[in-house]
Amino acid sequence: MKILVLNGPNLHLLGTREPALYGAQTLEEMMAAVRRHGDQLGVAVEWFQSNDEGALVTKIGECRGTVDGLILNPAAYTHTSVALRDALQASPVPCVEVHISNTLAREGFRHTSLTGAACVGQIMGFGAYSYILALEALAHHLSGRT
Amino acid sequence: MKILVLNGPNLHLLGTREPALYGAQTLEEMMAAVRRHGDQLGVAVEWFQSNDEGALVTKIGECRGTVDGLILNPAAYTHTSVALRDALQASPVPCVEVHISNTLAREGFRHTSLTGAACVGQIMGFGAYSYILALEALAHHLSGRT
Amino acid sequence: MKILVLNGPNLHLLGTREPALYGAQTLEEMMAAVRRHGDQLGVAVEWFQSNDEGALVTKIGECRGTVDGLILNPAAYTHTSVALRDALQASPVPCVEVHISNTLAREGFRHTSLTGAACVGQIMGFGAYSYILALEALAHHLSGRT
Amino acid sequence: MKILVLNGPNLHLLGTREPALYGAQTLEEMMAAVRRHGDQLGVAVEWFQSNDEGALVTKIGECRGTVDGLILNPAAYTHTSVALRDALQASPVPCVEVHISNTLAREGFRHTSLTGAACVGQIMGFGAYSYILALEALAHHLSGRT
Amino acid sequence: MKILVLNGPNLHLLGTREPALYGAQTLEEMMAAVRRHGDQLGVAVEWFQSNDEGALVTKIGECRGTVDGLILNPAAYTHTSVALRDALQASPVPCVEVHISNTLAREGFRHTSLTGAACVGQIMGFGAYSYILALEALAHHLSGRT
Amino acid sequence: MKILVLNGPNLHLLGTREPALYGAQTLEEMMAAVRRHGDQLGVAVEWFQSNDEGALVTKIGECRGTVDGLILNPAAYTHTSVALRDALQASPVPCVEVHISNTLAREGFRHTSLTGAACVGQIMGFGAYSYILALEALAHHLSGRT
Amino acid sequence: MKILVLNGPNLHLLGTREPALYGAQTLEEMMAAVRRHGDQLGVAVEWFQSNDEGALVTKIGECRGTVDGLILNPAAYTHTSVALRDALQASPVPCVEVHISNTLAREGFRHTSLTGAACVGQIMGFGAYSYILALEALAHHLSGRT
Amino acid sequence: MKILVLNGPNLHLLGTREPALYGAQTLEEMMAAVRRHGDQLGVAVEWFQSNDEGALVTKIGECRGTVDGLILNPAAYTHTSVALRDALQASPVPCVEVHISNTLAREGFRHTSLTGAACVGQIMGFGAYSYILALEALAHHLSGRT
Amino acid sequence: MKILVLNGPNLHLLGTREPALYGAQTLEEMMAAVRRHGDQLGVAVEWFQSNDEGALVTKIGECRGTVDGLILNPAAYTHTSVALRDALQASPVPCVEVHISNTLAREGFRHTSLTGAACVGQIMGFGAYSYILALEALAHHLSGRT
Amino acid sequence: MKILVLNGPNLHLLGTREPALYGAQTLEEMMAAVRRHGDQLGVAVEWFQSNDEGALVTKIGECRGTVDGLILNPAAYTHTSVALRDALQASPVPCVEVHISNTLAREGFRHTSLTGAACVGQIMGFGAYSYILALEALAHHLSGRT
Amino acid sequence: MKILVLNGPNLHLLGTREPALYGAQTLEEMMAAVRRHGDQLGVAVEWFQSNDEGALVTKIGECRGTVDGLILNPAAYTHTSVALRDALQASPVPCVEVHISNTLAREGFRHTSLTGAACVGQIMGFGAYSYILALEALAHHLSGRT
Amino acid sequence: MKILVLNGPNLHLLGTREPALYGAQTLEEMMAAVRRHGDQLGVAVEWFQSNDEGALVTKIGECRGTVDGLILNPAAYTHTSVALRDALQASPVPCVEVHISNTLAREGFRHTSLTGAACVGQIMGFGAYSYILALEALAHHLSGRT
Repeated sequence: MKILVLNGPNLHLLGTREPALYGAQTLEEMMAAVRRHGDQLGVAVEWFQSNDEGALVTKIGECRGTVDGLILNPAAYTHTSVALRDALQASPVPCVEVHISNTLAREGFRHTSLTGAACVGQIMGFGAYSYILALEALAHHLSGRT
Repeated sequence: MKILVLNGPNLHLLGTREPALYGAQTLEEMMAAVRRHGDQLGVAVEWFQSNDEGALVTKIGECRGTVDGLILNPAAYTHTSVALRDALQASPVPCVEVHISNTLAREGFRHTSLTGAACVGQIMGFGAYSYILALEALAHHLSGRT
Repeated sequence: MKILVLNGPNLHLLGTREPALYGAQTLEEMMAAVRRHGDQLGVAVEWFQSNDEGALVTKIGECRGTVDGLILNPAAYTHTSVALRDALQASPVPCVEVHISNTLAREGFRHTSLTGAACVGQIMGFGAYSYILALEALAHHLSGRT
Repeated sequence: MKILVLNGPNLHLLGTREPALYGAQTLEEMMAAVRRHGDQLGVAVEWFQSNDEGALVTKIGECRGTVDGLILNPAAYTHTSVALRDALQASPVPCVEVHISNTLAREGFRHTSLTGAACVGQIMGFGAYSYILALEALAHHLSGRT
Repeated sequence: MKILVLNGPNLHLLGTREPALYGAQTLEEMMAAVRRHGDQLGVAVEWFQSNDEGALVTKIGECRGTVDGLILNPAAYTHTSVALRDALQASPVPCVEVHISNTLAREGFRHTSLTGAACVGQIMGFGAYSYILALEALAHHLSGRT
Repeated sequence: MKILVLNGPNLHLLGTREPALYGAQTLEEMMAAVRRHGDQLGVAVEWFQSNDEGALVTKIGECRGTVDGLILNPAAYTHTSVALRDALQASPVPCVEVHISNTLAREGFRHTSLTGAACVGQIMGFGAYSYILALEALAHHLSGRT
Repeated sequence: MKILVLNGPNLHLLGTREPALYGAQTLEEMMAAVRRHGDQLGVAVEWFQSNDEGALVTKIGECRGTVDGLILNPAAYTHTSVALRDALQASPVPCVEVHISNTLAREGFRHTSLTGAACVGQIMGFGAYSYILALEALAHHLSGRT
Repeated sequence: MKILVLNGPNLHLLGTREPALYGAQTLEEMMAAVRRHGDQLGVAVEWFQSNDEGALVTKIGECRGTVDGLILNPAAYTHTSVALRDALQASPVPCVEVHISNTLAREGFRHTSLTGAACVGQIMGFGAYSYILALEALAHHLSGRT
Repeated sequence: MKILVLNGPNLHLLGTREPALYGAQTLEEMMAAVRRHGDQLGVAVEWFQSNDEGALVTKIGECRGTVDGLILNPAAYTHTSVALRDALQASPVPCVEVHISNTLAREGFRHTSLTGAACVGQIMGFGAYSYILALEALAHHLSGRT
Repeated sequence: MKILVLNGPNLHLLGTREPALYGAQTLEEMMAAVRRHGDQLGVAVEWFQSNDEGALVTKIGECRGTVDGLILNPAAYTHTSVALRDALQASPVPCVEVHISNTLAREGFRHTSLTGAACVGQIMGFGAYSYILALEALAHHLSGRT
Repeated sequence: MKILVLNGPNLHLLGTREPALYGAQTLEEMMAAVRRHGDQLGVAVEWFQSNDEGALVTKIGECRGTVDGLILNPAAYTHTSVALRDALQASPVPCVEVHISNTLAREGFRHTSLTGAACVGQIMGFGAYSYILALEALAHHLSGRT
Repeated sequence: MKILVLNGPNLHLLGTREPALYGAQTLEEMMAAVRRHGDQLGVAVEWFQSNDEGALVTKIGECRGTVDGLILNPAAYTHTSVALRDALQASPVPCVEVHISNTLAREGFRHTSLTGAACVGQIMGFGAYSYILALEALAHHLSGRT
């Protein structure tokens, strides 16, 4: 089983960016932890980060037939990107949306998600551990159990 | 470690209510699974269901000092209850919000959560497995790890 | 054939509450008239009143398999209760929504109905006679005629 | 006692138009049934259909002194016609609004009624039988009973 | 100089319709008074009433080259008719909008005018005398004085 | 009969301010014309201009018992002043609202009037002649004719 | 193959009405050009114009079984008519919506279309040529090619 | 003279709940102080707390004939309960609304009050002393003095 | 202890202005009563009225160091004045907002308060007695008791 | 004559993405058909696809002086991109907006177009044939015929 | 070259009012610095402060012919004053809007500017230095350089 | 001291794009002028332009530790990019937002700025000179003077 973790804009700054809100871990460290957790579950984990809406759209389009599931942290694009929503809707690969912080407890324009409607589900607010939970959720979903 | 799972209105009907949307398991079966998972983690799990906004508010108020963490599926009250939000805000016990279905993919009035802002985080869309993920998330949160 | 009439908040005050708007009959008198009308149609009529959103949700959940049809006057909850809407949607028992006054001719926040979308239809504005009409409508609906 | 049933735009297509939503009966058949029901109640029933907002406004204006009550299915004009609302408000003849389908369960722009505020009450969702119920409601209203 | 007074829906009921709001004069009496006033100013006054949006649109289209100015009381269509607004905008004949009552002191949906933006100006609230003032205003406007 | 004409902010600039929109006449010239017209009608006309919301409120309060009618051009305060609306509502002296330009044909925030609801009626779009029409309207209103 | 072109309010004024926006051709000339183009495609073209919402609704209702396709320029009714939308939805005859000008580049209330949702597609902004394109589009659609 | 003080959801937590916002006093202590103050005024004070919207509605309904005045702190229900508003409107017993904190200085959804429109007046922002002021206000109101 | 009572626009008309809504007392009588009540509490009461937003802003600015507390009835400016809100926010002198009528039971545009967010609290609906209650509230607040 | 066809995000997936909505043709096949059609009209057709908002903006900027006309299918960026609108507005090259599906019949957030206001016109709903129609429209527009 | 700096409500309190937000300098000190800077540029600087909307409107009206440019800090009136906007629009003297704090980073009702649309440009967020920049901007603008 | 000037979409077209609105200078010329002005202030100026939201986000992220201050003209992204706002918020480098035209005097969707809230301040409306002023503002801000 192969899973791709997609990370949106500014997430390459993790560890330096507002640590009170996003924690002190870098994205590399977080992704390494997700990979190790994948190894335990027998799941191969790839990851990718881009600040570019179009690059993320392209990546999602390339997943068909090469990847079994997606974990997507769309960051700021959660609230503005119809293109990402369309990309997910067009894709047969199931996706889990993930956020490091609890966006419901932040500014009003972060309370809705355009992309979430095209995902299996959403996990947010647990810091780096949100990714681990998403991996568990996706593995469970792909196993076809209820 | 002791955790209380609170279930809101209509969740007592699980298994009979729109199975295509909510699955065929009853609430009792779901809660039993959460308990078993708690046993594996060394966490004692209690649960409670009420159709009554006031009864849920009361339960949350009673948690102080008796329970280490809350898992709350506010169901329909997610979108209308300032009282539950106030109860969570008034409580020192951390809470994880859970939904069986992905509310972002349903009617517009289900796209926001009044209660979520007073929780650590939110997990939704994974059916009964949402509760298991919430238990993992809460246990991790209470352990103080990042 | 068995029908349950559910009455929401403040309806226990009928006869004393704003008689210009709601008439001088008490709820007991109204329900007795509905029962007599049911006797003529060969329909057994039970009724229930609660000021409690949760108690009404519970009653609706209990109808499955015990009652053939519901007449619901959600009163103030018409405009605020997602929980009642969910309860109706989860129930296989057909429901007719009823209002004593014409809510379209009152304050703006009474012009919409959250619960109505989960009912067969709606009857309003005819005072106590709204219930009699609802009984006729429900009996007709249950008879399967067009 | 004399009652006029007014039918708005596209209702002349009943029986052919989206039968899943509006049933297989033609308007002529429906109106014949209303007439027969009127005969039982000793009420003379006339009917009229127009796709024209102005023709409906004119008809309502002509009712004063010639008709005892109105049953109006404004169809699409329910949601857009201030002119029909004004015509009803200007008329001393009481009116009952009727809809074949439950408009609360359809598109958002059908959830409000401009005309309903100028009527005694509203009945909707019971197919052709909505008219029979409206006739009963109007006869009861005109008899001055509560 | 020739002027046409156009009257919209329900204005044929003047004198019988809500006299407290619209006065006891009939439309015929009002128009006769406008005509007499026109005679004093040396202005020929024609008038027309229709409940039909389309008929009013047609009349406005016919004015080009046959009439020097328009007085329009669009009544209910004031608030809903883009077609009348387009007709006025397409016409080289200047128009004054008139209302018998002060629409700003009535229901919220009467506080705006779609048609007014395509007129020279608006006069409202002075009962039948609003038409006389509009005639004066139009005559003054057509005379090219400031 | 004594009438006061109240002019709001920036109207002292008439003649210099955007002549394409407001004409080339000064306020003094306009008021002199209103006075002459008043002489013909046997009405004494006083006038007052202020850029100050409070000064206009005070003037309206002083009218009780000293003035028979008001003509008010609230200018920019039309759209923002609850204080002027309250002053008019508190006053037994009837008022006619006047605008030089047709505010419905300008920016969206000029399409509503807070003050108009507390007036007898509104006249706008006829340049300086709007005041003459208002004087006629007020004289007619005060004469008690319909 | 037989096609009906329906033209809404004020389109009979084409050629005289705001030529900068709508061009100098009359409707008769435009329709003659559409007919000639139809001859080339082997399509019989009929046309009809009305300022009347109801007359347009009636025409659409009559198309069933007599016409293969509709081209509709609803003009002002595009933005206000639920009745036309219902007529189209009730009709089995496919329709293409057409506008002479680009309504997205005009006033805000012209940016949405109520009728377009019930059509196959929409073509706008190409002047009289919009009709020719619509004819091509409809012929292609009816031929069943992709 | 007998007065009932009704306290809504979460107020049983006073003293423990966000003391920076609500103070360190418990509800029991606050109510005891209100009682003592009532003794000075010769007013018997009863009190009741519930987290349940329905229980509060029921209590208000029972006041007719047994209580002279109500002091209501609806807490979270202030902003969401049409049922409490209806209960107050249906009751002949005058009510004063009270809030411990100044809700205008908190989140946007706390800036309006549904219940306040059915009360004599509102007092908020003075901590526990808000109740004492409400008692004074109610006693004064019931004494019929201005 | 010295307290200033600030009264906004139109309050100088009290006693003559809509007595059904505001009572028959003049502002002078009301202020005299507040003064007498202040004498009992050992509080010196000054008062000021202006129709002028700017004059009220100036007065608030002058309070620093000369006055211990403010009672402000902003009247119409409650709903429109950011300047008064800024003045209060800039001032170290605590303020209590007061209204004679219950603004929640009046027009929709009176349901919010811009100024209230910058005050300690708000008292409204008790006629002239609202000021007495505000004096009590302010004295209590300044005494530092809870 | 040289024309550039610009395709926005996710259009590279055509043929695989939701074929029920977008058809079974790939973008390459569609573009080849447009090219062939261009050959018949004597128009050279180039095409470009990007998921990147910025890349599309850049392409539009490069068209000045090298291309005679643009056909743009902005896909998801239709509804969110002010940058594409600005690029079109800054460009002297005329553009026709194209959509494969009828966006008016889809989710509410697809009912408006930010980019359309900067185009000559819009064609949508005819599948791959929308491009052919756009080519015809653009060729006609560039030929300067009406 | 002569420039007038206009300062709106509460700015006379600078130095004492919320120094964290507005700095510790008084308005006199700020204006002295602007004057000194003007001396360097060969520009005579006058200044004026008023809490009064009307006084500011009057000042702007007096500038015509006596002053070459305006710097305006409308403070709270930025967000509420149509009268100031009209005054600026009526004036031939170019104006630069200035704010000490960055209003985009404050409460939502401070995110828009009514007055800014009638200015050359806007400078905000640089404390007292905003005025110096505005002086530079205005001098540059008046010099006619690009 | 080192400063980076970031220019958003379509700004590479300056000089050719709508010169009436943006002036005749190219971006290269503008940036050269900023550089020369930087030389005078002893500030090294780098610049960068991209049509790509992601590329701008990346550049902002790279500034940490390499650049002392940012000048950002986000152009169209001002109104739509949460990603740029997040990038600025995540960065310790202070930023000044700049616009060539006065966006408050353009279309409604340009009246707000998502990015401005994460900047020190905003300067707009002065053409190319806006950049010079921003450089002065930033240099002053970085010098720590008030």
